[in-house]
Amino acid sequence: MRCMDLNEALYTTRAMRRVKPDPIPRAAQARILDAAIRAPSGGNSQNWRFLLVDDQAVKDQLGPLYRESLDELWRTAYKDRIAAAQATPDDAAGAGALRVVRSAQYLADHFEGVPLFMFAFAPNDTSGGSIFPAVWSAMLAARGQGIGSALTTVLGRYRREETLAVLGVPPNSGWVNVCCVSFGYPTGHWAVAQRIPAHEVAFRNQWGTGLEREIAVPLWPAAADG
Amino acid sequence: MRCMDLNEALYTTRAMRRVKPDPIPRAAQARILDAAIRAPSGGNSQNWRFLLVDDQAVKDQLGPLYRESLDELWRTAYKDRIAAAQATPDDAAGAGALRVVRSAQYLADHFEGVPLFMFAFAPNDTSGGSIFPAVWSAMLAARGQGIGSALTTVLGRYRREETLAVLGVPPNSGWVNVCCVSFGYPTGHWAVAQRIPAHEVAFRNQWGTGLEREIAVPLWPAAADG
Repeated sequence: MRCMDLNEALYTTRAMRRVKPDPIPRAAQARILDAAIRAPSGGNSQNWRFLLVDDQAVKDQLGPLYRESLDELWRTAYKDRIAAAQATPDDAAGAGALRVVRSAQYLADHFEGVPLFMFAFAPNDTSGGSIFPAVWSAMLAARGQGIGSALTTVLGRYRREETLAVLGVPPNSGWVNVCCVSFGYPTGHWAVAQRIPAHEVAFRNQWGTGLEREIAVPLWPAAADG
Repeated sequence: MRCMDLNEALYTTRAMRRVKPDPIPRAAQARILDAAIRAPSGGNSQNWRFLLVDDQAVKDQLGPLYRESLDELWRTAYKDRIAAAQATPDDAAGAGALRVVRSAQYLADHFEGVPLFMFAFAPNDTSGGSIFPAVWSAMLAARGQGIGSALTTVLGRYRREETLAVLGVPPNSGWVNVCCVSFGYPTGHWAVAQRIPAHEVAFRNQWGTGLEREIAVPLWPAAADG
């Protein structure tokens, strides 16, 4: 197994929703999970559960729920954003938004063909700070093995009870499904994701006080070569 | 700058609350922030703000608020946990809980001497899934440069308004301080954190269905040597 540079993983782990049906080897799944449980949690409480899904029968039950959830997202929370993007499809922001929508819809339309999902659970009162580091570690560990992933929260938001029933989670278990991550070998290529640069979203010492311009450019891989 | 293996970072980035007063170079801060903004967010919305604090006057105002917040945490959410741990201090779980409490108290008692803090902000309605991957990326990028970190949420929970005022965040800005991360060069050593093994907190295909025993042991660095 080759080592991957930490920075390469941090810079190129972008949502990979177009994946091949090839199964994820059990050893790779073990690495993904073992990376997840190394993450920090509040008071080191490790109040988390992870459920891997690779059984076709379970995926076949989740697929329709996922498409219903995404339809609901498009019709509600994303309605205005999609309308705005459709009005300015040639604008960079509009094109980017429509690309995300198409990519998310692709995952929904091909849900049953994704080889592996990981559902993450946390207690009711979680702020997310004690579960999303673990989820992101799982995704980075996948990247280190050439496996793409995408984090999605729509099942837990729009089809919560139905999803818990399919997964066999007892009613009133106290565990909340905070997200579902899809895993698969990507059909596309790894690349540094386009992002709003740090100096536009960060301040120093006081809200509104800008950062140095040195924080304006991607630091990898350019800096690693220097 | 040396490259760090992704797995080494994922396995050894544990809470480092005992740090030296040495300042964090601006170039290292730039790498920390630039890693943060590469993380995924829902719909690639990048609805986040980061505020770096390294000004002594600001830290001097935050320190008392932090200690009050931690006192309140000990008296409320952690009251029963601490009492249970004090009742069984020789038990592994009890000793571990008391170690976390002592470590957190150390950070509070030495807050003003920590060289750098990063406050992360997200919109009101965040589930955490669109901000904690970025926060964790920042912490991993710090680890890659030999810089320790610790994620804490008590200021935002127990002294929210006072903290926003110190940081100059306008009232009703719509931004919520979801966490504060401390950064510093550790006085201790890096090591793989003790964790409940994956097979005890993970299932396959149905809630309650155990995973293979292969997921029972730490896979790094042992597996990397194989």
